[in-house]
Amino acid sequence: MSDDPELRRDPVTGRWVLIAPKRARRPMGLSGANPRHRTNRERTPCPFCPGQEDDTPNEVLAYREPGTVPNGPGWRLRVVPNKFPAVWPDGGERNPPTPSGNAEGGGLFFSTSAIGFAEVLIECPQHVDSPTLLTDEQFRNVFIAYRERMTALAADPRLAHVAVFKNVGAEAGASLGHTHSQLIATPVVPQLIGTELACAEDYFVRTGRCVFCDLVKQELADGSRVVTHSERFVVVTAFAPRFTYEMWVLPLKHEPRYEAISDSTALELAFLLKRVLHALDAVQESPAYNWFLHTTPLRGGEPPHYHWHLELTPRTSRPAGLEWGYSCHITTAAPEHAAEELRAALGT
Amino acid sequence: MSDDPELRRDPVTGRWVLIAPKRARRPMGLSGANPRHRTNRERTPCPFCPGQEDDTPNEVLAYREPGTVPNGPGWRLRVVPNKFPAVWPDGGERNPPTPSGNAEGGGLFFSTSAIGFAEVLIECPQHVDSPTLLTDEQFRNVFIAYRERMTALAADPRLAHVAVFKNVGAEAGASLGHTHSQLIATPVVPQLIGTELACAEDYFVRTGRCVFCDLVKQELADGSRVVTHSERFVVVTAFAPRFTYEMWVLPLKHEPRYEAISDSTALELAFLLKRVLHALDAVQESPAYNWFLHTTPLRGGEPPHYHWHLELTPRTSRPAGLEWGYSCHITTAAPEHAAEELRAALGT
Repeated sequence: MSDDPELRRDPVTGRWVLIAPKRARRPMGLSGANPRHRTNRERTPCPFCPGQEDDTPNEVLAYREPGTVPNGPGWRLRVVPNKFPAVWPDGGERNPPTPSGNAEGGGLFFSTSAIGFAEVLIECPQHVDSPTLLTDEQFRNVFIAYRERMTALAADPRLAHVAVFKNVGAEAGASLGHTHSQLIATPVVPQLIGTELACAEDYFVRTGRCVFCDLVKQELADGSRVVTHSERFVVVTAFAPRFTYEMWVLPLKHEPRYEAISDSTALELAFLLKRVLHALDAVQESPAYNWFLHTTPLRGGEPPHYHWHLELTPRTSRPAGLEWGYSCHITTAAPEHAAEELRAALGT
Repeated sequence: MSDDPELRRDPVTGRWVLIAPKRARRPMGLSGANPRHRTNRERTPCPFCPGQEDDTPNEVLAYREPGTVPNGPGWRLRVVPNKFPAVWPDGGERNPPTPSGNAEGGGLFFSTSAIGFAEVLIECPQHVDSPTLLTDEQFRNVFIAYRERMTALAADPRLAHVAVFKNVGAEAGASLGHTHSQLIATPVVPQLIGTELACAEDYFVRTGRCVFCDLVKQELADGSRVVTHSERFVVVTAFAPRFTYEMWVLPLKHEPRYEAISDSTALELAFLLKRVLHALDAVQESPAYNWFLHTTPLRGGEPPHYHWHLELTPRTSRPAGLEWGYSCHITTAAPEHAAEELRAALGT
């Protein structure tokens, strides 16, 4: 059997999965560590630290001090291909992917070469395990680099979607502690984004409005789940959370694409999110968490019904049979109560 | 804020979640234990052991030695209400639940009292942490008791669905080691079942056939993912797995409802699954795992397009941002390779 990564579609639900045998070899610096909370115990030397540039593939983007050279020290932020990728750029065209529905005629088993790009965004040179320790400028640069890489990847006509996410702590799936994000560009749209798009379109057809715009309006009017807001964003605890303290960061104004973010809006987002993460660390003793961007797929145009946003899921519980088997999550605190605690921690 | 459990619907995707503040108080006998593998370290005395019947609510079903009395020792299998339930029987009718679509008129925020039943099925009196240690008769009784409780719960007209699942090991969400299953009956159909039903119906409309019947046929013809089979069942590694070594147990003959299972078929299923679990323990050093039944919802009639089955998901990796944020799973071994290893362990 080949070691090449593969995309497969579930014959019943159409859910795409990645099978990537080479990932089995990646370093697990954080495994064996306390999985619930974050930790500093890990592999040395850290492959993401300055001086270890040889330990990663060549950078595809870097913000650098003047006069420094690529793949050497002197960088402030660095994006490199993942050494243990779940997708690969040279997959050829074994089967042209078709994004939805069951296969016609040729049977139920549909797979394709996992063409794509898996990148690691090293957020800062200093070896810190939390984005709350970034300066405002560093944090802003993370959001600008997301935009730059998504825009660059969009130029490859084979790609349909870029997932942009961050894992903090072993329980949240981080294999290395040095604070970093990931981008995974694929030729198909992942199931959860497809569901969101379809539901949002359905809402638009029925009402003539964007469901996220309505959500923002109703959350601001209600107030009980609002954690904080700024000129252009509101942060709420999710009305129907998968994890206690799950939060959504929503732009107030309708904007289908994250890539449209300006430098000044990126700074506002960074400033807001950093404060929220400090509050989360305070109320939940620095939990493991993920965040992920949800934005319009690369070939989706500028839909009137979709609105980019960022979701933040602290690992406040361990999903079991009801979650995995039925997609039904159980949490133990009302989002309104979680918002109250977070507001108190923010001092607002 | 009230402590009563609540069902809420995500305003965008329609996903139902449970919010159950009382669950925060449940004992976590396995927390702090090695989360990846199973372990014996836990709370004593075990509330599921004979002699500790006072530690659980009164039994709703028990298979007992002749002459023994309810809620005392002498049972061979025992079903009790969950002491820390995610749903409750006396919720009244705060809002009559509507199972799909976005709320009309009344805004985006839809919640209802989490009416329902949460039950624990204690599979045997002896304190063992793996169903492989059950006798064939005990294992069969588990499957018969699933049927009995689902049939009894179906009589409550408020209920729409019964989730039947098992968590083995702390990483899979088990809070107590003594081998047990769970049933959670709810007034709504969980999202993943709704998706499976809709996709299967769509396939039926297009082809006139049940997608699961076609899957069985194609898996048997292909053979590469077949782990083992019996007169009435086949076990395959999932074509598009969420976890490495994920397996599906499929009845060969079309049958929409698990509740139709006969005593002799339950014995065949028990015997088959026990062998498969031994093989899984051998190739993956006794991993944590879940299994869950997927069957037609209580009010779903006898659909020609749906076919009950059991899914088994070993916790062979730790889901991160791509899984939680996009429903896109990454695994590291081809299902065909996993099936080969499992067949070797079975000696077939």
